[in-house]
Amino acid sequence: MTADRRGGSRRVATVTLTPPSLRDNTADADRLVQALKRDVGAERVRIDLPLLKRIPEQIREWRYTARCLLFKDRDAHLLLAATDPSAPGVMAGLAVDLGTTRIVLRLVDLADARILDEDAFNNPQIAVGPDVLARIHHADTPEGLAELQAMVVDGINRTVSGMCTRSGFSTADIHLATIAGNTAMSHLFMGIPPRWLIREPYIPAVNAPDLLTAAELGLALSPGARVMVFPNVGSYFGGDLIAGILFSGMNEMPETAILVDVGTNAEVILGNRDWLIACAGAAGPALESGVARMGMMAAPGVIDTVTVDPATRRIRYETIGGLPPRGICGSGVIDLAAHLFLSGMLDIRGKLVPEKCGEHLAVIDGMNHIVVVQAEDSATGRPLMMSQADIDSLIRSKAAMYTILETITLSVGMTPRDLDRFYVAGTFGSFIKPRSAITIGMIPDLPMECYRPLGNSSLGGAAMALTLDDPMAETARIRDRITYLELNVNQELMNRFSAARFLPHTEPSLFPSVRVGDGSAPPPALSLVEVQPHTPSSLCLAGARTAIPGR
Amino acid sequence: MTADRRGGSRRVATVTLTPPSLRDNTADADRLVQALKRDVGAERVRIDLPLLKRIPEQIREWRYTARCLLFKDRDAHLLLAATDPSAPGVMAGLAVDLGTTRIVLRLVDLADARILDEDAFNNPQIAVGPDVLARIHHADTPEGLAELQAMVVDGINRTVSGMCTRSGFSTADIHLATIAGNTAMSHLFMGIPPRWLIREPYIPAVNAPDLLTAAELGLALSPGARVMVFPNVGSYFGGDLIAGILFSGMNEMPETAILVDVGTNAEVILGNRDWLIACAGAAGPALESGVARMGMMAAPGVIDTVTVDPATRRIRYETIGGLPPRGICGSGVIDLAAHLFLSGMLDIRGKLVPEKCGEHLAVIDGMNHIVVVQAEDSATGRPLMMSQADIDSLIRSKAAMYTILETITLSVGMTPRDLDRFYVAGTFGSFIKPRSAITIGMIPDLPMECYRPLGNSSLGGAAMALTLDDPMAETARIRDRITYLELNVNQELMNRFSAARFLPHTEPSLFPSVRVGDGSAPPPALSLVEVQPHTPSSLCLAGARTAIPGR
Repeated sequence: MTADRRGGSRRVATVTLTPPSLRDNTADADRLVQALKRDVGAERVRIDLPLLKRIPEQIREWRYTARCLLFKDRDAHLLLAATDPSAPGVMAGLAVDLGTTRIVLRLVDLADARILDEDAFNNPQIAVGPDVLARIHHADTPEGLAELQAMVVDGINRTVSGMCTRSGFSTADIHLATIAGNTAMSHLFMGIPPRWLIREPYIPAVNAPDLLTAAELGLALSPGARVMVFPNVGSYFGGDLIAGILFSGMNEMPETAILVDVGTNAEVILGNRDWLIACAGAAGPALESGVARMGMMAAPGVIDTVTVDPATRRIRYETIGGLPPRGICGSGVIDLAAHLFLSGMLDIRGKLVPEKCGEHLAVIDGMNHIVVVQAEDSATGRPLMMSQADIDSLIRSKAAMYTILETITLSVGMTPRDLDRFYVAGTFGSFIKPRSAITIGMIPDLPMECYRPLGNSSLGGAAMALTLDDPMAETARIRDRITYLELNVNQELMNRFSAARFLPHTEPSLFPSVRVGDGSAPPPALSLVEVQPHTPSSLCLAGARTAIPGR
Repeated sequence: MTADRRGGSRRVATVTLTPPSLRDNTADADRLVQALKRDVGAERVRIDLPLLKRIPEQIREWRYTARCLLFKDRDAHLLLAATDPSAPGVMAGLAVDLGTTRIVLRLVDLADARILDEDAFNNPQIAVGPDVLARIHHADTPEGLAELQAMVVDGINRTVSGMCTRSGFSTADIHLATIAGNTAMSHLFMGIPPRWLIREPYIPAVNAPDLLTAAELGLALSPGARVMVFPNVGSYFGGDLIAGILFSGMNEMPETAILVDVGTNAEVILGNRDWLIACAGAAGPALESGVARMGMMAAPGVIDTVTVDPATRRIRYETIGGLPPRGICGSGVIDLAAHLFLSGMLDIRGKLVPEKCGEHLAVIDGMNHIVVVQAEDSATGRPLMMSQADIDSLIRSKAAMYTILETITLSVGMTPRDLDRFYVAGTFGSFIKPRSAITIGMIPDLPMECYRPLGNSSLGGAAMALTLDDPMAETARIRDRITYLELNVNQELMNRFSAARFLPHTEPSLFPSVRVGDGSAPPPALSLVEVQPHTPSSLCLAGARTAIPGR
């Protein structure tokens, strides 16, 4: 989407050298560097020894011209490749979204930022543990860290090799890789012990890794290929989010925007070109994969859209690929809750209203359930249901999300409705329907055009870095400007959370666009005394101290 | 001598880190970098991945202190090592004088510039060819270059290993190496094809090599050790001379000095802190190793000092180690010529005067010889003699040397007698007696205190670079300031050369301190018409186009 924001790349350039003479006996490499300075403006250029060894013969063979690939590493440009301008091949870059569950790769032509290919594979570290916590513990065992690193590196090598075969070029044509992952995944990828990430005071080994070589990481790319691992702010704010900010472009805009990335945690970044503030809360599980039994990842046969006819109160649904339904994903769950509420089947407290639910109600073990799909229509042969407990969990999650958004905006003297733009990252962001999320009071009541799904912003940011003029500096600038906001679970926050546990909120004026089924405004605000007490641990809300590092 | 000119090194420093807390969760590596910035003033610090991996455990084990070794590589400092401050070991550096004939190594303690050990070995590439020309041709054969590189690298590894064993530390304690060699030797050492060095227009592959790793060169030092190869100005002015300038300190002095390094070529650098001018001429062979049959390198039993009693005209000599004489080295030859001239046995044209030589004269095949050692006193059983042809050759060499000195000083509007300091580098410089060299008119008639032997200035400069704050920048500054003077063999130069072919010179006022044996001044100047014509090729004088690249 925004990968071409800054236009084509100046980093692939064909330069013409002044041939040497008795009067100008500058060395070959220094002559090439002079030409790059003159034509590309590269102040200092470093050349790896293997490349340097080939230069004398090559520049003579190429009649004192060369097609050069440069990468700016802080104060100097690196010459990553030099080829014959009369026989130009692909100079490719590899962008990697290093997800805890899934690793997504994109090959990009570095000359014009064109996408050459994309592929993905499940993170093989899942075999060690589904979450990063288990993997971090495994990294403490003998050879555990090397094993975890090899799983990811081998997976990338295999997948890249397949992509190259398909695309008709060689892994040796890939000269640069950019890696965006959370802090724990980035540590594991670099083979750096992550053990202090999960021990108070939760310290990464490194925030801003130097540019690495593919060789030292075991990546089978061009022999001189470099690898840029996105920097992190701390254990809880990783390079994937820096990539997301870069991809959104919010760090360059005058207007204040918010970026929400929902995974295991909900990570929220608020800011503009002048400042950035970030926080994270464990609001995610209910949103990412639906809730309880029914919840699952978006996949064929999974319900992603639900509507309820306000007149008949009949539930309608759509599945991914139009297949018989076998589950419901996060966006479907939010749709369902929104429409149940709008049609009066769910009250302002998020409780099912039996008399309104009619044939969709089932009572099992004394608990109300809403039946979304009857057994005979289900791909599993069993009805697809959502229990009152599932709904309660969703309500807690949406309240946590709204509380985070409210807290971070209030921290800078704004309210959620003051935002100019609302970016939603991740697969969640691609599928969520803002209208439904607003209806249940999960996200602020902004005009629809404010909402922008970013898709895989981590991959997008990584790919963008491949063709930026100075991605090391640009990501460092983002990183350095981020203020991390600790969410302190105090009375004020709890009050906000309690108020957000209603549909859409105890203060309906915050959600003027939300009208219940009969067209009337929601009932007036409830006073806080009616709210059930909750202990902080049930909040699903956390700052760095208790959230799970990673998503 | 001047290795401590700039005092101890700031590059080994023990820093104390602020321990992390929930309020300050900066990563371990970034925390260490902050401490280095605060305590050592290192603006940017890079850390290699293997070192980075160990930092989290180590800084905790060392209670948030670390003894760090830094090296400034242009715009950033590299962290080369971090050790436990409570158990400090040696952090060593290796200086290498990469000579065509001999390779000299010095181990230095990087904390205090103390010399730990020194050793040397003959350059194993001699097996391929005694001069660099043969080696450059060999480098063009399959595997030839790799073979030549391995010869030197293996030799260094073997010698360093022996030094470490003797000194009681490990090769892994050596974190930095500095290499000073001529341009061809440096190319071979880096495994860079040198073929264009000897083909018009004589172009090196590289003038200013980037910092290299020991690993990529095959040097068995610390895994993260770096190698600084001194830059060159061109095929004919190598890193050994840059090292010599650095060692002399002439590049920082307000007074104008000259540095002469005599080997295969005579390399001359003139300048001060504001400017540097350099040239080279093939004046060397006769000076370095004596002349013809008799000439040899300084070694036990070799005559290095000769005097002639002006009254008796008896030749006296001293040998190295006081052993029976078996030859004569350069300084002995110059002594001999000077004293023969002072005692009237050699006339102003450099011809033996038979009536003055008496019993020291021998005529063989019609040619006059001066007998320095009679057969019965010689270690070889044969008399040690110098023929008129040998003397003629010496005279041509000394004339070439003086002409170079005169030409380079005249090129900046000075005369040789205006010089404030005269540095003589190399083994030649260590042994030559300025008094004798002045007497034959080889070097200008300056007060004795102006003459400073530098010894192995190439090794000295390499060792100095080990403990300088910013040797990459300092050597680059020297390199960039050098103007290379092409010696054009024109009529003016030939006139100067012809005038310098007399003892000490046709213009005696240039050498007021030289008085012949009877205390009288030398005869008045001869007019140039008496001088025999010489073709340019017999001059032994050359600019870059015809000199042999290397010494």
